[in-house]
Order: sequence, then C-alpha cells, then structure tokens
Amino acid sequence: MVKLEEALKKHQLSMPNPPAKGGIYEPVKEFGGNFCYLSGCTPSFNGEVKLTGKLGKEVTIEQGQEAARVCVLNLMANLQAFCGSLDKVKRIVKMIAFVAGTDTFYDHPKVANGGSELLVDIFGEEAGRCARSAIGVNALPGNVPVEVELLVELKP
Amino acid sequence: MVKLEEALKKHQLSMPNPPAKGGIYEPVKEFGGNFCYLSGCTPSFNGEVKLTGKLGKEVTIEQGQEAARVCVLNLMANLQAFCGSLDKVKRIVKMIAFVAGTDTFYDHPKVANGGSELLVDIFGEEAGRCARSAIGVNALPGNVPVEVELLVELKP
Amino acid sequence: MVKLEEALKKHQLSMPNPPAKGGIYEPVKEFGGNFCYLSGCTPSFNGEVKLTGKLGKEVTIEQGQEAARVCVLNLMANLQAFCGSLDKVKRIVKMIAFVAGTDTFYDHPKVANGGSELLVDIFGEEAGRCARSAIGVNALPGNVPVEVELLVELKP
Repeated sequence: MVKLEEALKKHQLSMPNPPAKGGIYEPVKEFGGNFCYLSGCTPSFNGEVKLTGKLGKEVTIEQGQEAARVCVLNLMANLQAFCGSLDKVKRIVKMIAFVAGTDTFYDHPKVANGGSELLVDIFGEEAGRCARSAIGVNALPGNVPVEVELLVELKP
Repeated sequence: MVKLEEALKKHQLSMPNPPAKGGIYEPVKEFGGNFCYLSGCTPSFNGEVKLTGKLGKEVTIEQGQEAARVCVLNLMANLQAFCGSLDKVKRIVKMIAFVAGTDTFYDHPKVANGGSELLVDIFGEEAGRCARSAIGVNALPGNVPVEVELLVELKP
Repeated sequence: MVKLEEALKKHQLSMPNPPAKGGIYEPVKEFGGNFCYLSGCTPSFNGEVKLTGKLGKEVTIEQGQEAARVCVLNLMANLQAFCGSLDKVKRIVKMIAFVAGTDTFYDHPKVANGGSELLVDIFGEEAGRCARSAIGVNALPGNVPVEVELLVELKP
C-alpha cells in the first residue's frame, strides 16, 4: 500500500515533475526483468535550484534533511514516469546518499535520514526501509548539498 | 568452505556483534531472491569507535587497512545475523571502499586491500575476490577513516 | 550491434590492453547468471598514467571528458577479456563516475558525459544509455581525475 499523498502531506511537500536530465543518461534503467537503477537526483524542484552549499557551512542539518527528501521525491517522480505507478514497487533495495560537506562535517547519516524516512512513509517499513550508505564528499554537481541514487525491485 | 575462524586467527581479530544502526536503514536487504545489499559499515567494534581521523593525516595506511578489516567484520556480523550462517554465501559480488583522506592522499586501494584480503581469507579466491571500487572522500560519518559496503549473492 | 571500431575512430582512440590490477579484486565479477559488476577503472592507458590532477585546478573539463572516455575503454577491455566479445552485452545498466575536483568544482556531469557518450557510441542509445550518478570527490587513487565503475547485463 503506497501512501504517497499522506507522506507528502506530512512533510508539506508536493510532487515535482520528473527533473530535466543534466547529461547523457537514463533517469531509470530496467535490468533483469524486475530491477531498476535510478540515476542520482539532486534537490532541485521543478527545475528550480532552491538550495546550494555544503553541510557544516551554509547548510544546516535540517536543511540537508529537507534536501534529501526532495532528492527522493525527484527519484519517485522519475520512477512514476517510468513505470506508471509507484504501486509497482516491490521494495526499495539500496540507497547511496552522497552528502557534500566540509572536511569536518561528520553527520552524513542524519542528513540521509531525511530521504530514508520519506521512503518509509511512502512504502512502509518492510518495502521502504532499504540498505544504505551515507557518504561525505567535497562537492556535488551544481553545488547541491545532497545527491541520492536508488536500486529498486519491481513486482513481477 | 567458509574459513572464518582461521581468518580471524590470522588477523588476531574476534567477531564483533552486529553494529548498532546509525539511521533509518536495514543492515542487510534481500532482493531478487538470492541477492543482498549490505549497508555501509564503519570500523567501530562492538559499539566502540577505536579509530578516527583521515589517511594522509592522523591515520597510517596500516591503520587504515586494519580499519577496513573491521568494516568487513561488521558486514559479516550483519550478514550472519541476517541469514544464519556465512555458509549461505555464494559469492561476494562487489565492494565499494570509501576512504576518508586528505586532498593529497592517493593510496586508497592499499587501504581497501585490508578488507579485500579478509574476504578472500574467509571465502576463498573464487567466492571472496569481488569487483571493487576504492574511492577517496573528504569525510565519513563520525570521522571514521573507512566505510565499506557490499553486494552479496546467496546460494539458492 | 556493437560499433566499437566506429566509436574508437570517432574519438581517435585505440583499444587498450586490460589494465593491470591495483589491488585484491576481480576486474569483472559475474553474478546472478547474466549480470556483471566491473571494478572501477582509472584513465591509465596500457599501464601509462597520462593525466593526473583535479578538475578545477590542473585538469580542464575537456581533459576530464577524455579521461572518462579512457576509463570506459579500460572497462571495455576488461569486459572483452572476461566474456570474449562485447556482442554479449545486453545493456549497460548503471555507471558511477567519481570525479576528483576542488571544493568549488561543480561540473561533474559534464566530465562524466565523456564516458557516457562513448558507451552510447559503442552500444547505441537503447543498450548504451545507462542510469548514472556523477559524484565529486577530493582525491582518487594515484591522483587520477576520474574513476568509472559499471553494472552490465549480459545476454542469456
């Protein structure tokens, strides 16, 4: 049972359009019949970059969590465009959350939790709680603070 | 033939408890029937952070290799808790070793080798020697020097 | 229809030998019958490191794109050695392009496009255009500017 509307309401967010591509890649690539890799998404919203900068400097943890949520929403918009409905998702398998921060920022998992919580809100504990790595980096495309990629399994 | 005991003896290590989670994720997520993604593990040992800092600064390559070994042991503890026994592993497919270092540290593969060697010690050359990327980053959660994630195939 | 020769001619490149391994890993690891993970490759060419340094400093975007192309060629050399022929590729599923840059370099996707374009040149739009994340990092092994890893699906 996908609870997208409730999740959006909870976080006072609305569903973005699938983000424009920033390069030569597919937003969603199917493989092996039921698996999809979702290209890394940034927290632009309907083409507008609302937040740039780095954790430990211009961006607070709360802002980083909000950015991670928007990354996940963009991923969901791409997935919805690819397979018609999020009801086709069997489980979210794996997330990597890349968090741009200073050399002395060490709270990457807290930032990633923003996106992880939203996935659980949408898909529930069993399907939405995925394996994850939260990684610090010195810079991300367009100076965004977070980029999230996902591996998803679809229903047969 | 899993040789966990011999491998632990060789490196004078003991098996840790599965590490406490640092966020909203699953330590091990099954997908497609026989695959598991293992969330990134850091080199804490039974909840104790024994080593912080970065390669090229406070942490030597030897210490980094030891840290990578402990990351892999934590991953094994999670996997054992998930599937009962490491005998169920068909092969280790893929590792990403994220190594936190200064801007002028370039020996990330040497650090990653600490974890890769342990996997070969445990599972043998064929099952244990996996595909790998060794990546430098400016910071990792909790200021640990290494974080390792794994993709694993289980026996049917 | 694999168009390796045309792609090499277009970019005035020749096929390298499979790169020497820089650690304890497999260049290509099969799993699940038809999937392969390809270990991260750097832009050395037949053992010669032709370009070191970082984007935003010593390395221009054009040089970075050329480096990404050579990373992809090394991946192709490893894949060819593993499965005999690139004709066995069903699709390129996923790329992560790690781009080493300064803290204020933000054009990682442009650099990654060098490799992505080559994959499309070789395998065509449908099979060659993959999911992708382009990630900035502060340092890569041997001070190379780009490292690329791939997930590939083979024909049954």
